[in-house]
Amino acid sequence: MRLGTVYLVGAGPGDPGLLTVRGLELLRRAHIIVFDQLVNPVLLEEASAGAVRIFAGKQAGRHCIAQSEINQLLIDHARLGYEVVRLKGGDPFVFGRGGEEAEALAEAGIPFEIVPGVSSAVAVPAYAGIPLTHRNYSSSFAVVTGHKAQKQQAPAELAKLAAVVDTVVILMGLTNLAQIASELLAHGLAPETSIAVISRGTTDEQETITGTVADIVDKAACIESPAIIVIGRVVELQQRLNWFASSFGRGELWPAGEVRVMHYPLETEGTDLSRHS
Amino acid sequence: MRLGTVYLVGAGPGDPGLLTVRGLELLRRAHIIVFDQLVNPVLLEEASAGAVRIFAGKQAGRHCIAQSEINQLLIDHARLGYEVVRLKGGDPFVFGRGGEEAEALAEAGIPFEIVPGVSSAVAVPAYAGIPLTHRNYSSSFAVVTGHKAQKQQAPAELAKLAAVVDTVVILMGLTNLAQIASELLAHGLAPETSIAVISRGTTDEQETITGTVADIVDKAACIESPAIIVIGRVVELQQRLNWFASSFGRGELWPAGEVRVMHYPLETEGTDLSRHS
Repeated sequence: MRLGTVYLVGAGPGDPGLLTVRGLELLRRAHIIVFDQLVNPVLLEEASAGAVRIFAGKQAGRHCIAQSEINQLLIDHARLGYEVVRLKGGDPFVFGRGGEEAEALAEAGIPFEIVPGVSSAVAVPAYAGIPLTHRNYSSSFAVVTGHKAQKQQAPAELAKLAAVVDTVVILMGLTNLAQIASELLAHGLAPETSIAVISRGTTDEQETITGTVADIVDKAACIESPAIIVIGRVVELQQRLNWFASSFGRGELWPAGEVRVMHYPLETEGTDLSRHS
Repeated sequence: MRLGTVYLVGAGPGDPGLLTVRGLELLRRAHIIVFDQLVNPVLLEEASAGAVRIFAGKQAGRHCIAQSEINQLLIDHARLGYEVVRLKGGDPFVFGRGGEEAEALAEAGIPFEIVPGVSSAVAVPAYAGIPLTHRNYSSSFAVVTGHKAQKQQAPAELAKLAAVVDTVVILMGLTNLAQIASELLAHGLAPETSIAVISRGTTDEQETITGTVADIVDKAACIESPAIIVIGRVVELQQRLNWFASSFGRGELWPAGEVRVMHYPLETEGTDLSRHS
């Protein structure tokens, strides 16, 4: 019997338009879709009518599926010849435990493919108007999780990290924001260091709070999970580049029929584009 | 006259399937496409027949367009009412100078949208079988460019970085690989630290060399640009998870007509899936 393939697909940060073309193609053809709670439910509507959708995330009041169970679920379905899409929020190899799933598949001899996704670590700041790098502000960035802050020595490490890279992105850190801020200050980070907290990024409910490491805890008191924290001078760009929430907004797409046919250099009347020709 | 919008679109790392759905939609409708040398030319074939394609990258023996000229090109076309896609390799806000372009557009009052892309920093290692994070190997990663290594104090900073994060990704570092490796060793990085160099990642010409910081310069002597360097224990996973170049390969997509209609729990014959029901 022919083995199915398991596709570890990154669903992107929330905006369904940020799924990749390859990801969408696989989603539409899959027999089985195993998805997490961070996946936008709208994407599941792209699946074929007969596809089986299996929720494998955390859900209040319900048994949470262990990672080993998820691995086995993927393996068992592929052995039956099904084409399986494992749909994960963001990118499957950025804090998605995709590495463990790939290891389990490789060990079981199941063909697999990694379909990288747009990572929330990059895209959520971008939707808030914060580029992780910028010629004048930042030439390096690091990505960690806020869970790390719960470990014994982690805050000291976070302070060291903030001293070495220009931009630090903390995923899943909102719960520990107070601890993160106070420990960063205790370990020598300047109180006026810029910081942003972005909630539900890339969705209609996106909310951005900016401030300093000294005042962010008060300012972000009412913000909700999931949220991403960005620390560094690039946060200063947020007000100017805040395209998603501003009047710039994202315009309606112009109708396809209106595309004008033209060739470069442009045959325009009364305009000066000659210096580009 | 109605202003056009400028879309800063990430084209992804090379594999055209890694363009986002939103990016493809905009590419197909744009009047003007301004693209870089790292963009896969296949993507330009998606543009409408009448769209103007403007190359704004570096090209041997030709005048290189200054960033200020590119900014002005985007502004001028939007002012004429054209819908402009600025197509950049990887993600526009990860070392793509997209931040500067967004600033120029905001200052000129031109509506703009950021369309994040799959970053090469994450996807190229993924195609080589290297997850940047993994429960047992890495809970943090940092991304820098190899250009930084040319600056006076940069190698010391790189060594500090390697001491604080679990995985370091260096973009555009191949030219300086020897300098990077020797300085990392001089600043105390263990010689047996795992390192990978991945050339032309996510394309048919992808090539991966793995080794240690002590022997990588010899091993990677013949590898070609563009290349991405990954340092850290996650590189040890490469041999096992090397799906793209292995016999696992990426299978042919099964024909759409073959999708079987079924409902969960599965109505399968002679198989035991009961524990998942």
